Amino acid sequence: MPFMAYGILALLRVATDGSAPSAAPTLTTAEVLAAAKPEEWRAIDPENTLYLELASGRVVIEMATAFSPKHVENIKALAREHYFDGLAIVRSQDNYVVQWGDPNHDDVPDRRPFKAAHSVPGELVLSAADLRPFTPVPDGDVYAPEAGFAAGFPAGRDPATGRGWLAHCYAMVGVGRDNDPASGNGTELYVVIGQAPRHLDRNAALVGRVVQGMELLSTLPRGTGPLGFYEKRDQYVPVRSMSVASDLPAEARVPLEALRTDSATFKALIAARRDRREEWFVDHAGRVELCNVPLPVRRADPR
Amino acid sequence: MPFMAYGILALLRVATDGSAPSAAPTLTTAEVLAAAKPEEWRAIDPENTLYLELASGRVVIEMATAFSPKHVENIKALAREHYFDGLAIVRSQDNYVVQWGDPNHDDVPDRRPFKAAHSVPGELVLSAADLRPFTPVPDGDVYAPEAGFAAGFPAGRDPATGRGWLAHCYAMVGVGRDNDPASGNGTELYVVIGQAPRHLDRNAALVGRVVQGMELLSTLPRGTGPLGFYEKRDQYVPVRSMSVASDLPAEARVPLEALRTDSATFKALIAARRDRREEWFVDHAGRVELCNVPLPVRRADPR
Repeated sequence: MPFMAYGILALLRVATDGSAPSAAPTLTTAEVLAAAKPEEWRAIDPENTLYLELASGRVVIEMATAFSPKHVENIKALAREHYFDGLAIVRSQDNYVVQWGDPNHDDVPDRRPFKAAHSVPGELVLSAADLRPFTPVPDGDVYAPEAGFAAGFPAGRDPATGRGWLAHCYAMVGVGRDNDPASGNGTELYVVIGQAPRHLDRNAALVGRVVQGMELLSTLPRGTGPLGFYEKRDQYVPVRSMSVASDLPAEARVPLEALRTDSATFKALIAARRDRREEWFVDHAGRVELCNVPLPVRRADPR
Repeated sequence: MPFMAYGILALLRVATDGSAPSAAPTLTTAEVLAAAKPEEWRAIDPENTLYLELASGRVVIEMATAFSPKHVENIKALAREHYFDGLAIVRSQDNYVVQWGDPNHDDVPDRRPFKAAHSVPGELVLSAADLRPFTPVPDGDVYAPEAGFAAGFPAGRDPATGRGWLAHCYAMVGVGRDNDPASGNGTELYVVIGQAPRHLDRNAALVGRVVQGMELLSTLPRGTGPLGFYEKRDQYVPVRSMSVASDLPAEARVPLEALRTDSATFKALIAARRDRREEWFVDHAGRVELCNVPLPVRRADPR
C-alpha cells in the first residue's frame, strides 16, 4: 500500500549527498531509538505531570517546571483544589488550538471561584541562559535566531539579546490570557493542534507538552463560533478532572520515560530526520525544522 | 475570555519596530480582506475542483492543474469512471496525514479495477519557471532557498538549480505511491493534517488543496495501526463519492472564490501576518513562515 514503506523499512544507507556531516550511516527513527542506552531515557516526574481526564481517556502533560515555575506552581495549586474538575473544553479551532477552562469565565456571578493566584505575571520570555543544556537544530529557523531543545522542550534563543523562549510546536500547552500580558493564571489552557503558531512565542506562557493522548484533543469536533469556540453548551467536552500525577496512587499512574534531549541518541535522531534514508525517499531534504523533530516518549515498563 | 481578543479586535496601529518595511498601518486579516477589490478574488474553476463526499459532509479540493497536470488529469479520469465511490478513508495519522483509497489495494483479486492510467510518472519536481507569478514570503524557509505562492498554492524554489515544487503545508493534497517514484496514479490520496511535513516535498506529487471541509478530515479518529492505518474494516470512513464539480448541476455545486496570490491584497495579508498588531500581542514576530500564511477562500455568493 502506498506510504506503507514510509518509516517502516529499515534499510541502512550511507549518506552520500553531503547534507549529513557524519560519515556514519543514517538510520530510521526506530533504529536510532533501538540503540539508545537506558540512561539516555529519563523518567517523567509525576510531580511535574498533569492528567487531564476526559470521557474518551487520559491526556498526559509534562509540565515545563524548569522554565515557567510560577505558572506551573499555580496550575498545580488549581489542580489540587480541584478547580478543573467538571469544567470543559470550550474551544477547538482547526489547525490552531484546543482550549479548556471555565465555560462561565465571562459571567462573573457564575464563574467558578478559586484560591490560587488570579494573576501570574512574567514567564512569557525567558533567559537564553535558562535553556541549558541546549541541543541545537542546525538548519535555521524562520522565527528564532537559534532553535533547539532544552530539557525536553522546543525552544528559541537570541544571542544578541540574551533572550530565550519555549516554542509553540505541536502539542505544546500554553496559558490563555486577556490583553493584559499579566492576566494569565492557568485557569484557561490551550494545546497546539496544527501548524506551529510561532507568532505566539513570547506572547503566551508555555507550561508543558502533551506527551500522551494528543489524539483525544486533536480529533475533537471543531467549534463553529469565532476562534473555534463551541457555540452551544451541549457541545462542551466535559473535563472529568485534572490532577497532578503524584497525587494519585502509583497504580493509577502511567509511568512514562522521555528521551533526554541532551543525549547522543537524540542528536542522532535529529541527524536521521534531516536526512531520511528510508527507501521510499528519492529526494533528501538534508534539513529539518524545529517542530518536525519528534520528542520520543515511551512507557517506563515496556509491555 | 482569554484569547477572544486574538484576531477579533481591529485596532489600527503603526508598525514602529522596523520589522514591517511599510509606513502604512498594519491591519488585521479581516481588515485586509475587507479592503480587497472584487477583481482580486478569482472564481475556483469547477473543472479544477473535486468534491469528496462523506457522510459528515463535503470536502472541496482545488486541483493544482497548472502544476501537476498529468496527475490531475488521471484523478479526474478516475473520478469520472466513479472509481472512488464506495471506497474509504483508510488512514488517519495524528499530526501527519489522512489518506483514502481502495481498502483492498494490497489484495490483487479484490482490488477495484480502473481504466485510468496505472502509473503517472514525474511531477514530483517542477521548474521554478512554472511557478509564476511568484509572491515570495520574505523571511526565509528551512526547507527551500525561496518560499512563496503561485496561483494559490504554497511553493518552494531553488534559483541555483532552477527547480521548483509545491510545498506540503496544511491541507495540501498529495498522491500516495509505492517505493517506485513512478508508481503513483492518484488512486490513493492524502491530505496534510498537522505540522507541515516538508521533507515530503519533491518526493510526492502534490495535486491540490482542501479549500473547504478540512475539519471533516482533521477530526477523524486516528488509526491505531502502523502509520495511522485503521486496523479494522469497520473503522474505515466510507467515501460516498468523489467527483469533478463541473460534472454536477450548477445548483449542486458550492461556488467559491480564492484571493489571488498575486494580488496587492494578498501581499498586504503577508505583511499583516508578519507583524500582528492586534492588541493582544505584546511581542511582534516580524516574520512569518510559508505554511502560516492563510489562503483566503469565500463563498462566491455571500450569504
